[in-house]
Order: sequence, then C-alpha cells, then structure tokens
Amino acid sequence: MSANTVLLDFSLDPARINDEVSRKDIVRLCKEGLEKYLTGLKISYDMLTADGYLCILNESSSGTIVTIRFFEQGLITINVEYYRRDGDEPKLSFENMKTLENGLRIRLEAKRSKHLPPIKRGSNIDVYLTSSDERVIEYDIDRVLYDKRSEFQKIQIVHSKSLGNMLVLDELQNIAEADLIYTETLMRRGIEDYVGKEICILGGGDGALLYELLKEKPKHVVMLEIDDMVMQACNKYMNSICGNVLEKRKDDNYEIIVDDCVRYLHKFSQEGRKFDYVFGDLTDIPISETPTGEIWDFIRKILQSSFEVLKPDGKFMTHGNGVSCPESLKMYEEQLVKLEPKVSYTKCTAFVPSFMEEWVFYQVQREDTNVVASV
Amino acid sequence: MSANTVLLDFSLDPARINDEVSRKDIVRLCKEGLEKYLTGLKISYDMLTADGYLCILNESSSGTIVTIRFFEQGLITINVEYYRRDGDEPKLSFENMKTLENGLRIRLEAKRSKHLPPIKRGSNIDVYLTSSDERVIEYDIDRVLYDKRSEFQKIQIVHSKSLGNMLVLDELQNIAEADLIYTETLMRRGIEDYVGKEICILGGGDGALLYELLKEKPKHVVMLEIDDMVMQACNKYMNSICGNVLEKRKDDNYEIIVDDCVRYLHKFSQEGRKFDYVFGDLTDIPISETPTGEIWDFIRKILQSSFEVLKPDGKFMTHGNGVSCPESLKMYEEQLVKLEPKVSYTKCTAFVPSFMEEWVFYQVQREDTNVVASV
Repeated sequence: MSANTVLLDFSLDPARINDEVSRKDIVRLCKEGLEKYLTGLKISYDMLTADGYLCILNESSSGTIVTIRFFEQGLITINVEYYRRDGDEPKLSFENMKTLENGLRIRLEAKRSKHLPPIKRGSNIDVYLTSSDERVIEYDIDRVLYDKRSEFQKIQIVHSKSLGNMLVLDELQNIAEADLIYTETLMRRGIEDYVGKEICILGGGDGALLYELLKEKPKHVVMLEIDDMVMQACNKYMNSICGNVLEKRKDDNYEIIVDDCVRYLHKFSQEGRKFDYVFGDLTDIPISETPTGEIWDFIRKILQSSFEVLKPDGKFMTHGNGVSCPESLKMYEEQLVKLEPKVSYTKCTAFVPSFMEEWVFYQVQREDTNVVASV
Repeated sequence: MSANTVLLDFSLDPARINDEVSRKDIVRLCKEGLEKYLTGLKISYDMLTADGYLCILNESSSGTIVTIRFFEQGLITINVEYYRRDGDEPKLSFENMKTLENGLRIRLEAKRSKHLPPIKRGSNIDVYLTSSDERVIEYDIDRVLYDKRSEFQKIQIVHSKSLGNMLVLDELQNIAEADLIYTETLMRRGIEDYVGKEICILGGGDGALLYELLKEKPKHVVMLEIDDMVMQACNKYMNSICGNVLEKRKDDNYEIIVDDCVRYLHKFSQEGRKFDYVFGDLTDIPISETPTGEIWDFIRKILQSSFEVLKPDGKFMTHGNGVSCPESLKMYEEQLVKLEPKVSYTKCTAFVPSFMEEWVFYQVQREDTNVVASV
C-alpha cells in the first residue's frame, strides 16, 4: 500500500509556454493523453504563477490528482498522484508511461521529454536510500527483518533481492551480504600481512571486519563497539558476513568490548598498550557519548587517539567517502595533513555493491616510516 | 537549470486525516515548517477529493508551488516544486529537508516519515536511469559527450564521475568504462579456453567483448553489428574498453561486419561455416531490419540460428537479465527448453557497476554433449 507519484516532463519552446492560447492547447493535449489511463478527468483549478502557470486536474471517481506546471523557461512538469492498494494494478504502469511520454512528446513537439518510474510513498518498506553525494537510489528491498531504535541510532536490517540482507543505520546503507569487497578493500587483503599482529577495531559492529581479520591469523584483535543492539541484530541476520564472532564475543584471539572507543583508546594509551593496526570502522556520522560538537573535531580526535596507541610503524586503516564527493575527501585529507607527528597516506578504491558507488579507503602511517604518500 | 521537485511524506493516524479540524491544524503546521525555507506562502486553493483532501500553497514572489495531499488511508504527501537556475542555491537543500522532515514528524506526531533528494527535471543532462526491474537510479552523470539518433536507436555516451564514460542506448545503460567484470563474466574468462577457437559475436557494438576475446588468442572472431554509429561513438569515447578494434575493423584474427546478424547467421549456415562459440551480445531490445513481432520470437530465432552455425560441442554465451527479474529469466529459460535439438545450460552472475545490479549470464550447449544443466 502506497501513494504513487508519477513524474513526467517535457521541454518546449518558451514562447509556447507563455502564450495563453497555446497553453490551453497544451493542457488539452496533456488531458487527452492522460485520459487513456485516467477516467473522468476534470480541470478543477488553474492559476498564473510568478514564473508560469499551474493547472490541477482530478479524477472525481478515485481522487487521482494531476498537476500540470508550466515554467516560463520552457518546461512543463506533469505529476500524477494516486493511492495504490496492495494488489491493485498501477493506473499508469512504467510501460504505459513510456507510451504516454512518446505520444505527448510528438503531439507537444517537445525538444526533450522524460518519465521516471513511479515514486512509491508511505509504504512500510522504504526502498529509497541516498548515495554519499545525495543521489536517490531505489533498492530492490522486499522485506524489513529488523527495525528498532537504540540509544544511539535507528537500526534496520532489510532484505534486498540482489544484495541479500543489508544493515541500514539512520537511513544510511552500512553493509550488505554482497559486500565482501568492502571489507577486503578496507583491510587490503593480500597486501597487508596480519599474521601475528595486534589489531584494534573502532566500531565495526556488523562483525564483518573482525570475522575476515581472524582468518588472517593475527595475534589478537580487540573491537570497541558502542551499540550492542547493532551487534545483536547482525548476529541474528548477517551471519554470512560475521560468522559467530558476535555470538561468542570473546576467544583466545579476540575480544569485543561494548563501550565508547574514544574512552578506551585513552585507557589503552595510558596503559601503554600498542597496536600494529587500528581500523576506523565507525559509521559516517560519529557516535560518541561525549558531545561531539563539530564532526571534523571528532574525526581528528579519532585519528590522534589512534596514533597514540599505534606502534611507530603501525597503520591506521579506514573508509573515506564516495569518489563523487571530492570536497569531503579533500577535507578528510586536510585533517590528515594537520596531524602531529606528521603522517603520510595511501588510498585505494572499490565499487561497493550496497553503496552503489565507488568508495575510497585510506591507509595512514607516520611519515618517519618509509612510506611515500601516493595522493 | 532544472525544476526541482521535492517530495516528503508522513504516515498519520487516519482519524486525524479525515477530521476537518485536525486537517486544518495539520496544514497550518506544514505551512509553518515550510515557511522557514519559503517566503510569503499562501493557500491558494483547496478541495476535498474522493479519498481525502488537497491543498495548494504558493510562494507569490517566485512561483514555488506546494501541494499537500491527504489520503484517507493515513498518509500525507507534500510536493514542493520550483525552478532552480544554474548557480542558484536550492530553496530546500537535502540537509534542510532532513531538518524539516524531523521537525514535522514530531509536530505532526507521525508514525513514519520520509524525504527524497530533490528530483531534477528538464535538465539537458539526464541523470535518471532505470534498473531491469523498473527501479529509479540517479547516476552521477555530469557531462553528455555524444547524443545522436541512428537509424536504429538513440545513442548517448555520458560521463559518470564514478563509472567513467558510459554507453546509453534508448535510455538503457549498456556498458561503462568500469564494467570489465561484465565482459569477463559474459566470456567466463579463466574458465573457457579460447586459444585457437572460431568465434562469432552477435551485436557487441561497444567493442569490449571483441577486445577482451582477442587477448585470449582465438583463431578468428567475426562480429556482426548492425549500427555503425554505435561503433563510431564507442571508438571515439570508449577506448579504454575497446582499444583500437573498432578503429581498425579488420585484422588477421578478426573482422567486423556492419549488417543484420540474423541475415549473416543464415548466410554462414548455408555456407556450412561453423563456430566454437557464438556470443549473444545484442541490446535488450532487439534490433533487426526484419519486423520482429514478438520479442521472444526474435530471441528464439537468434538461439536457433546460432545453433545452426555452432559445432556440435560449441557454446552459445549470452547475458540474461537482472536477478531481480525472476519472471523474465524464467521466460528466457523456457525458450531454451523449447530448442531443438535439446540444449542444456549453466548460468552465473556478477554485479555490474553501471547496471547497479546483479546480472545473470547464460552458457548454452547441446544436450548430447556431456554438460549437465545446473539450474
């Protein structure tokens, strides 16, 4: 059950948009085109706007509303909105819209035209997520398996037909069963050697990084995750990516501590505990019990605290952002440059299926070690 | 330059939707929320519909139109539409929409709420493409490099920030520079042995399959592509995936024939010419000079003709559809079952970056050879 919003648009000669006679003619043609799919359409209202014209049509039997908007710059937008009950055929299927668009493009003598798949609104299953650069992506999500709000965030596990189960935190896609490439690129499998190493994971509540790292025979991994509910949800629904590490919580070679990672990094630092690798696997929006203030302050704090517990040749490994967000990546790199002692970094990218975009990963190391930055 | 359509919705108790007093109150709250971003909003029209209520607000200074639609089932949709010139800040940024949504959700006591990134309409750069199962995907397309209509189809080459240059035929994404996995899965690189083999490609106008196959040292490849303009466009803008094979057109080990593949398969059959592999690399919507009638007739014809030119142990290799389209995949498999002589098939999948979905590929062989179907 959802409302469907059907969007069509046509680019026309502005002269025809702004002339009253031709405008009436255009409305008539649109109405005729729509009447193949909607019955008893009537114009119920129209008005001149500061930059064009608006006309409202309605299908009196069902409540379908059509708005036709003329923009003086040479554009007509048509929005059809109606309520579609479960099992009801769409009034305007995607195929019908193609026919309608092509027919109207010719009759309106439009220079360009476009129709979108119907936007589904108000459904309990939310299929629209957003890329790092604020693009809308409709996922093939067909089930919600888990939907709760923890003390820290909104936690959902949904099922996607093509990506498998997917963890969504505060409306952001975090990881799906199809995302092994994400974890393998974050840890640079096959490039970094983890045998016998001491590792600390900040965040990582989905368990995938811990699970994959343990396969590489490290000496010990400690994982600091603040949100127990995320781990419980992933342990139940994401076993293919986390195995039983979230179930067991602790073994000879690893330990999961449910606490604020900043607090624990400070504790480790005071104890003189040192790591070969620290992984920044926190959500994009930082979670902390302390007031974070500016997001970049938090990110800088994480970096500084991590280097306090890293061995001199230790590495900080983390995910950055989508390649479509060069400004955000640049800001992150500016934080890296500000660090004391000086660090250098390398980066690599991978297309992450559940993100539907190419993602950037960073490897940061003290500059006095012999790694050259490949920016 | 484009019109922005901003979509928000809220799920409420139906009783509050259908009560006139509470409806007025809800409109007032929505108006107050919107007035932080839109100035001088006035209600210009309202009406009862067969299944709820419609209210139109407008910003008289600029022509921004807001429609607030009440559905008796318990849903309110808010659509804000305005023209945004190049360089203008958005009236309602994605960040503002988040604030507006959260504020209104609390004030309206909504059970759920949602906002989408603004839908951009009427721009010369079309960023919206559709998945195989009719989901909308907004791409990070920032330039149109080529846009022409051939005798057969609309041909576009666009640039995506994350996928590189991308071939779009009749609004369908065909291949991008980031899609090596597509070609490698289609040809099953590392599994099939092409050394010394005779190969025929049906379609394949982007040149990527031919380019990759030639690296495998086949004896000879003949490619039958009907649309010369596609090859010219790809030769100019897709060199990273096709090398110089479209430029040269012919060498000792390959030849590109610009013609109808059905006609040529018939010719090859009559000549008694036989291949080890035939690749079906045609667009999803078949292109043929002969009237195709039903799409499945064409697909069956391609399969039949291909087996007429295949050696007894030869293989027909092709792309199917997205895994989200089980019905369509099933229909294709039904065509395979109908073939005479009997065939068996295997299939495999890969996530194709430019398709933004997991895609199915088929390998079809005569059943009298010793391959067992793994359905």
